[in-house]
Amino acid sequence: MGEGAASEAKVEGASAGKEPRTARGRRTLRAILDAAAIEFGESGFHDASISGITRRAGVALGSFYTYFDSKDAVFRALVRDMSAQVRDRVAPAIRAAPDGIAAERAGLQEFIGFVRQHKEIYRIIDEAEFVDPDSFRLHYATTAERITSRLRAAAARGDIRADVGEVHAWAVMGMNVFLGLRYGVWNEDRPHEAIAEEAADFLRHGLAPRPG
Amino acid sequence: MGEGAASEAKVEGASAGKEPRTARGRRTLRAILDAAAIEFGESGFHDASISGITRRAGVALGSFYTYFDSKDAVFRALVRDMSAQVRDRVAPAIRAAPDGIAAERAGLQEFIGFVRQHKEIYRIIDEAEFVDPDSFRLHYATTAERITSRLRAAAARGDIRADVGEVHAWAVMGMNVFLGLRYGVWNEDRPHEAIAEEAADFLRHGLAPRPG
Repeated sequence: MGEGAASEAKVEGASAGKEPRTARGRRTLRAILDAAAIEFGESGFHDASISGITRRAGVALGSFYTYFDSKDAVFRALVRDMSAQVRDRVAPAIRAAPDGIAAERAGLQEFIGFVRQHKEIYRIIDEAEFVDPDSFRLHYATTAERITSRLRAAAARGDIRADVGEVHAWAVMGMNVFLGLRYGVWNEDRPHEAIAEEAADFLRHGLAPRPG
Repeated sequence: MGEGAASEAKVEGASAGKEPRTARGRRTLRAILDAAAIEFGESGFHDASISGITRRAGVALGSFYTYFDSKDAVFRALVRDMSAQVRDRVAPAIRAAPDGIAAERAGLQEFIGFVRQHKEIYRIIDEAEFVDPDSFRLHYATTAERITSRLRAAAARGDIRADVGEVHAWAVMGMNVFLGLRYGVWNEDRPHEAIAEEAADFLRHGLAPRPG
């Protein structure tokens, strides 16, 4: 997919009635969301400003109001956008994997890779707990549902144990979030492939002693 | 241990030079920290007030300044106090467990039990990421080190696989934090014993297909 196609891809999040109708509009909306990620990530919600976002995006202040009603609205859109970006980044790797455990490995590797390029995602999702609790809850609830579905599909294919469910999905999600924090945000001291490999081996075999 | 002994137990967190010297002082400090947990948990850091804390604690405003220099100081003390409370709540259950997996199960069960009684712990630790990043980092870094140590001790006893390390510790911590969020804070729809049992079985066997 060429750059033009990528930048003209669907982009959501504009306030009601303010959805862009042209490729150029979608590019501007994308630029505003990308700039908002940096602005909120660096300054936090309270100190972030709409003018800071438009300055970073290189667009006029009026362009902001073409797409969003308020700072709250762009923050809410950003949480959903980051959630969707993670989903879209990991999905192809998961689909291409030969089995359920390999899918979790590939997904985690892509996730840590994404986090290293977008460290601000943690501050943004975490601050949503306070600024926009509904978005915070929606992010983790939908992520957990997605993991539950793919674990159940893998179980149906016989790749993993038959009794997987919500507890396993939340365990996997928690593992991924914390490995992303430690090895993606805090310190890139180990290759993300190695972390994903070790985590996948843990998912496959658990902590029980291994036969010599 | 009687109530008197418990309330006279060591309590830390007072600002430098303001440590209580009497049992009565320690009880007042404990009351202020417990009230601060409710105040910060309900209102968030910015809207919380020192007078709100002393009102909830039933102590005079001057008593606050006997032990703390500022709202920042009591928040910082509270993060460390909640971290210590979790540690002290789960430690006896972990010590009493017959093996390494049973220890993780007992620890998670106690943790979810603690969370159900202190739902505010999530908001407080999570808000520390913004209000007091050093405390936030210290909380997870020391928790991960504690888990790494106990996994390695269990491995040395032959209870669990020999190659456990930091990745496993962060995986276990992430699992526990997210299961606590889902089944402790969000919804108590399932007994915490059942969650801990399912998580322990996952730790023991992983996700690989089980022999029929």
